[in-house]
Amino acid sequence: MNNDQLIRITRYFRSLNRLKTIGLEKVFAHNLADAAGVSAAIVRKDFSQLGIHGQKRGGYEIHDLLVSLGEILGKGDSQNCIIIGCGRIGKALMHYNGFEPDGIRIVAGFDSDPLVYSDASHPVPIYPISRIDEVVEALEVTAGIITVPEQAASDSYDRLLKAGVMGILNFSPITLKPQATEDGRVPVVHNINIALELEQIFYELKFPKAK
Amino acid sequence: MNNDQLIRITRYFRSLNRLKTIGLEKVFAHNLADAAGVSAAIVRKDFSQLGIHGQKRGGYEIHDLLVSLGEILGKGDSQNCIIIGCGRIGKALMHYNGFEPDGIRIVAGFDSDPLVYSDASHPVPIYPISRIDEVVEALEVTAGIITVPEQAASDSYDRLLKAGVMGILNFSPITLKPQATEDGRVPVVHNINIALELEQIFYELKFPKAK
Repeated sequence: MNNDQLIRITRYFRSLNRLKTIGLEKVFAHNLADAAGVSAAIVRKDFSQLGIHGQKRGGYEIHDLLVSLGEILGKGDSQNCIIIGCGRIGKALMHYNGFEPDGIRIVAGFDSDPLVYSDASHPVPIYPISRIDEVVEALEVTAGIITVPEQAASDSYDRLLKAGVMGILNFSPITLKPQATEDGRVPVVHNINIALELEQIFYELKFPKAK
Repeated sequence: MNNDQLIRITRYFRSLNRLKTIGLEKVFAHNLADAAGVSAAIVRKDFSQLGIHGQKRGGYEIHDLLVSLGEILGKGDSQNCIIIGCGRIGKALMHYNGFEPDGIRIVAGFDSDPLVYSDASHPVPIYPISRIDEVVEALEVTAGIITVPEQAASDSYDRLLKAGVMGILNFSPITLKPQATEDGRVPVVHNINIALELEQIFYELKFPKAK
């Protein structure tokens, strides 16, 4: 599966969950096409490649589709994440309610400032970074979100890898490059640089792309 | 200029500013290559394509490079942005200090909740959404950042376009698709879906890409 297809399938899955929530049982390719910003033909082609076939009278059962796509996307169990850096952006993500519908749970935060520490009675406790190994092991953490200032980014990254967290979403302005660890595993790193996104927008406004 | 090259040049520009801050006057292609995650040969090729040439004895003057790249990137004046949706993430971005070095200024927030409104004496005042047109015109706003819940995303988008804001960075879970306005201009829209980024990371961890 290539990256574009993966993004589409994640979008189909999400739309299907919404449609199910509002009580629908059946969906057509063009419904999902609108949600994913593609043509109905692409939706049908994606499903057919994945061995998912529609009903004789047209359309798909939402329940069946959710099961099939959920298996492909590795859904089911919720995924536990931690946040390194509990400043404004880190705290905002700790309490972001857009993760839950996707089975993403933020289970702990880590910071270097003792003033922000809290204990396990809080919905999302904040610990000193020295406790990362034990928390990652106890809570089976899959991914870490880095929201520290520039100068602390690469140390946060090293600590996550050392604790065995191989999925990393980096919001710091430093671009982190995945490199294989000693045991040969390669971390998955996504960098989101908000200032850079805005700068690209300014640039594209100034020099519109040729059509 | 293609997108990859634009991203590299933005990174060179940013690194040059940092090097200048710490007192350096001269830089070599391999310094910038490290910062942008490419080879020194690519840096030289980028510069040569842009008509920028190094010194006879090797290296580039940081000051001259900043002027040349700044012109290409349309730097100089700061770019004014507004935020629609002043919940946790919106507020975190209002006070994010990573924008300033890039000349990005968040000049106002907008929200539907009167309890969060403030006046122009605040560093970043929060207004009712009904005042968007006047603020955009008075402050020459270039881009809007959408940090509203799903159900308010498309209305926020329409209001930005109507106010004449053609650059949009969307953090809501809805994917916004740029469509030409009545006067034929096409907005520049970047969508950042944090939950989707995490899901892609989980997926790539489960099914590593072939090398």
